[in-house]
Amino acid sequence: MTGHAPNRNTLWGRAVADELAAAGVDAVCITPGSRSTPLTVAFDRHPDIHVFSHLDERASAFFALGRARRTGAVTPLVCTSGTAAANFHPAVMEAAQSRVPLLLLTADRPPELRDSGANQTVDQEKLYGDAVRWYKDLPEPEADDRKLRSLRTDLARAVSTAEGTPAGPVHLNVPFRKPLEPVTVQGDVPDDLPRLAAEGRDDDRPFVSTTAGHPMPDDRDLRRLAGALDAERGLIVAGPADPPGPDPQAVTALAHATGFPVLADPLSGLRFGSAVRVAPVLGGYDGVLADGAPDGWPDPEVVVRFGASPTSKPLRKYLAGTDARQFVVDPAGEWREAEFAATDLVVADPSRLCGALSRQVGGPGATDSTAWRERWEAAEAAHWDAVEEAAADDGRAFEGRVLADVADLAPEPSTVFVSNSMPVRDADRFAAPAAKGITMLGNRGASGIDGIVSTALGAGSATTDDLTLVTGDLAYYHDMNGLLALARCDVDATVVVVNNDGGGIFHMLPIERFDPPFTGQFKTPHGLDFEPTAALYDLEFARVEGDDRDGFRDLYRESVASDGSHVIEVTSDAEASHRVRDAVAEAVAERVADP
Amino acid sequence: MTGHAPNRNTLWGRAVADELAAAGVDAVCITPGSRSTPLTVAFDRHPDIHVFSHLDERASAFFALGRARRTGAVTPLVCTSGTAAANFHPAVMEAAQSRVPLLLLTADRPPELRDSGANQTVDQEKLYGDAVRWYKDLPEPEADDRKLRSLRTDLARAVSTAEGTPAGPVHLNVPFRKPLEPVTVQGDVPDDLPRLAAEGRDDDRPFVSTTAGHPMPDDRDLRRLAGALDAERGLIVAGPADPPGPDPQAVTALAHATGFPVLADPLSGLRFGSAVRVAPVLGGYDGVLADGAPDGWPDPEVVVRFGASPTSKPLRKYLAGTDARQFVVDPAGEWREAEFAATDLVVADPSRLCGALSRQVGGPGATDSTAWRERWEAAEAAHWDAVEEAAADDGRAFEGRVLADVADLAPEPSTVFVSNSMPVRDADRFAAPAAKGITMLGNRGASGIDGIVSTALGAGSATTDDLTLVTGDLAYYHDMNGLLALARCDVDATVVVVNNDGGGIFHMLPIERFDPPFTGQFKTPHGLDFEPTAALYDLEFARVEGDDRDGFRDLYRESVASDGSHVIEVTSDAEASHRVRDAVAEAVAERVADP
Repeated sequence: MTGHAPNRNTLWGRAVADELAAAGVDAVCITPGSRSTPLTVAFDRHPDIHVFSHLDERASAFFALGRARRTGAVTPLVCTSGTAAANFHPAVMEAAQSRVPLLLLTADRPPELRDSGANQTVDQEKLYGDAVRWYKDLPEPEADDRKLRSLRTDLARAVSTAEGTPAGPVHLNVPFRKPLEPVTVQGDVPDDLPRLAAEGRDDDRPFVSTTAGHPMPDDRDLRRLAGALDAERGLIVAGPADPPGPDPQAVTALAHATGFPVLADPLSGLRFGSAVRVAPVLGGYDGVLADGAPDGWPDPEVVVRFGASPTSKPLRKYLAGTDARQFVVDPAGEWREAEFAATDLVVADPSRLCGALSRQVGGPGATDSTAWRERWEAAEAAHWDAVEEAAADDGRAFEGRVLADVADLAPEPSTVFVSNSMPVRDADRFAAPAAKGITMLGNRGASGIDGIVSTALGAGSATTDDLTLVTGDLAYYHDMNGLLALARCDVDATVVVVNNDGGGIFHMLPIERFDPPFTGQFKTPHGLDFEPTAALYDLEFARVEGDDRDGFRDLYRESVASDGSHVIEVTSDAEASHRVRDAVAEAVAERVADP
Repeated sequence: MTGHAPNRNTLWGRAVADELAAAGVDAVCITPGSRSTPLTVAFDRHPDIHVFSHLDERASAFFALGRARRTGAVTPLVCTSGTAAANFHPAVMEAAQSRVPLLLLTADRPPELRDSGANQTVDQEKLYGDAVRWYKDLPEPEADDRKLRSLRTDLARAVSTAEGTPAGPVHLNVPFRKPLEPVTVQGDVPDDLPRLAAEGRDDDRPFVSTTAGHPMPDDRDLRRLAGALDAERGLIVAGPADPPGPDPQAVTALAHATGFPVLADPLSGLRFGSAVRVAPVLGGYDGVLADGAPDGWPDPEVVVRFGASPTSKPLRKYLAGTDARQFVVDPAGEWREAEFAATDLVVADPSRLCGALSRQVGGPGATDSTAWRERWEAAEAAHWDAVEEAAADDGRAFEGRVLADVADLAPEPSTVFVSNSMPVRDADRFAAPAAKGITMLGNRGASGIDGIVSTALGAGSATTDDLTLVTGDLAYYHDMNGLLALARCDVDATVVVVNNDGGGIFHMLPIERFDPPFTGQFKTPHGLDFEPTAALYDLEFARVEGDDRDGFRDLYRESVASDGSHVIEVTSDAEASHRVRDAVAEAVAERVADP
């Protein structure tokens, strides 16, 4: 063995791990495989990097996505060559859409074995197409000064690109030639290799550092934008947040300065927490607008939108139906408004822009928005009164209550993850804004029902928060493999499975009227009894009927108060729940129209 | 409603289903989703197409792969937009590598919603990159004569391309605009739409038919090739087969004419069945060559290879170490020989080439290959004697015996699916050639451990064969979701799980000597008790110790003799099994060297 490393692959792998640690990486998700051995060994040996070991690459990638969604920082992924890398693709797609940093380190055969018929050798080049922010096929490892400098530079670039604007997935394909293990290869690593290339910087600084820039309009444009906000009737619409989410102080400052209510998506990072105490942060719009704007309401004049497209379809339709001037604020300058109702795109960091605008608008002479705001606040109150009445009607099953109860009972601080397709919608309509420490998350980029368990557990692994996952039964089934991470990655969770035996959301679509194929091909009842998953993954399991509100609340309270992981299955009837959803919206419409 | 269809999407979906049925498709795999509604409704209503409904798109794609691997014909896949399509990627990769026809019908949003921030809208264009044989983004549905003709043509082309040479995946991206359901849209489908475009051909013929061509050298080249086979020492090496596999009669005819032994991979389609009765079809080479060629053996002069690269590493190394003239026969003219020991590529269909060559070689004056053949046959006998002795040594656990016993006891006809990574290797070394009706299959294209359960059940769904899956515990865990198809798709199977609690294959690699990280990151014991999977999926479950041969044989016999699905877990010790593997090889080496 030379002074630096027993062979070039070991040296190469260690440089990867060292540079990632220097860039702030403190954990990595690894699935077992042979070709990735130099990376796996290096991460396992690194004192500052925790290894989360997974067995299913799809679950591993969603776990890494969940951590990054919660923290805004990348948790790299390592896999071996072949289909392993293709299993990352669903999470890569979600990360690309929802701007979550991912770093994919896919081991590969060396160039001479590609397209040769060699076993487990597939075409991994540009495997994820345009879904990644950056792709590079790394050079063949060699104990060479310039190559090692390029490697260290690439790793630093990979992290800063993944966490840049917009954040997203980065793919480094990493070829290795045998031997893959840390066996000594005489002469493979010269003793006189320059120390900087071989060992990195002495002081644990990264080989190169990136200072990020944040887009911001210049002062003249800011004044123009501020002028446009001088209106009687305005709205601030916060969609699902890019991690790590907006600065509540900046948004509430703008709400104060303009007097505009904030319509806060459950995934906006604003519906729960301090913002609710100091500004009109509203969450009832999905019910209030369910059948369009209430009778007699004037249109807003101006709308400031940031984050992704809102979860609420009624809100999207309402905004599309107004002739308001609508500013879509996006730091990446991308288009995220598919009703094509926007009039202005502002390329800016939302928090910085809100802060800057709040200092320019309002003040003496500003237009009075009190009447408009009070109209929204009254409607908001009517919505939550109607929700509480429906929820209190014991003996009446409805799924939305589960989200209301979880938001109500979740201890502080909590991370609450909501699956697609119904739980996130139920959170939108039934989880009331509250000044408590809840971070609510979901996979609302591509809005798949895959990888939900893993994403939630990954998010849970990143903090000491209590973790609750509220998931539908199809999403639970789709990622049952993800439950392995509870024991394997030492995460505690309360998993609430709203089980309506199939795709409840399809009851909301016109296909419900065509049966067949409705039941067989859309609703797709599976008839699974999930209780054995408890034995399989060593969980506590309890079942409660959907109309037993107190039963659910008791189980949930017990679960969050105790150690270990718990699955609470709430058996439910999707069709009946949809009727309650509609009834709540009708009750609100009546109250708002005739207060 | 017009005479043809209630709206353009319904018409479009029906044209897809009709053309696929006319092209011979009799089944389709569908996962629930909204955007794909026009396709789902059309397939569900089609009288000649059976719908296999799955909930996990990854499992669905591997199920379709399994059916196509067994039959050689495509089973189309339908999914909704978003991450659903990305979940197909692992199976697409395997299909591309192992030349299995797949047809991916991914529903998509209409063009105006792409790259707009619309929910569940991702970039699905060229989603699988170069892994597909053909990609097309279909036009927006419209009740237009030329568009419908193009659609019908594209479907016929898709099937013939997927089943062409080389077979593989084809991806059609299918955009739909609402309404997706078969609701009446007045005027959407004109009554005067030409009947051929709207309804297809009257007689159920496809809109267009493809007559496939098969590559074959011309007569002068054939004579030259035949001349090269006039040798004392030759081998016919049959690697894993492209479905539907070679014609045994043609291969045995060449073996007869040349006198060369056939070294038949367990996945070659030749190790089991009639060929074994009439020609020297050998399966012991992996043991015979485990430590290189036996002492004193001369090199072969000529080798004819077809199929993919052999599973057996000893065989690959042996072939690379000879200076024989090596003909690699491949109908697609691709390169499948990663030791770079081949000297000649012959672009031809292997069965047709073997048949043609068998009529040109041998006969009066041909070189006598008897001594060479007898040398191989004696080694073959020594190998199977040693295997039988090791297997008969009760009280000694070894995983290879499971494959020997399954091959021995599987009823006729059987489909036996073997997982990566150890079961296929154990089949190679321990499942003796036999003149019985076993079709042995594996995913040996990309050699992943993903999707194994689903591929096996898909293969089982295609025939009335008895179905046995022999899988390692990691592969079983990776695709537990696939077990849902047992009940949902009405497949009966005997699933033998060789459970050595982690990645047993890593004991064969040098990383075993480095612990940590060996146990934590490579072996990765999961400690899962799989018995609850029986309750979850309504299976019979039984466990037997790896050293209890009679116990296993009894359980296996009972399982195949009874209805329903059974999981037989064989608890095993990977390290001890590797020692037996080595001991068998040593015993053979001794006998062959000193008979």
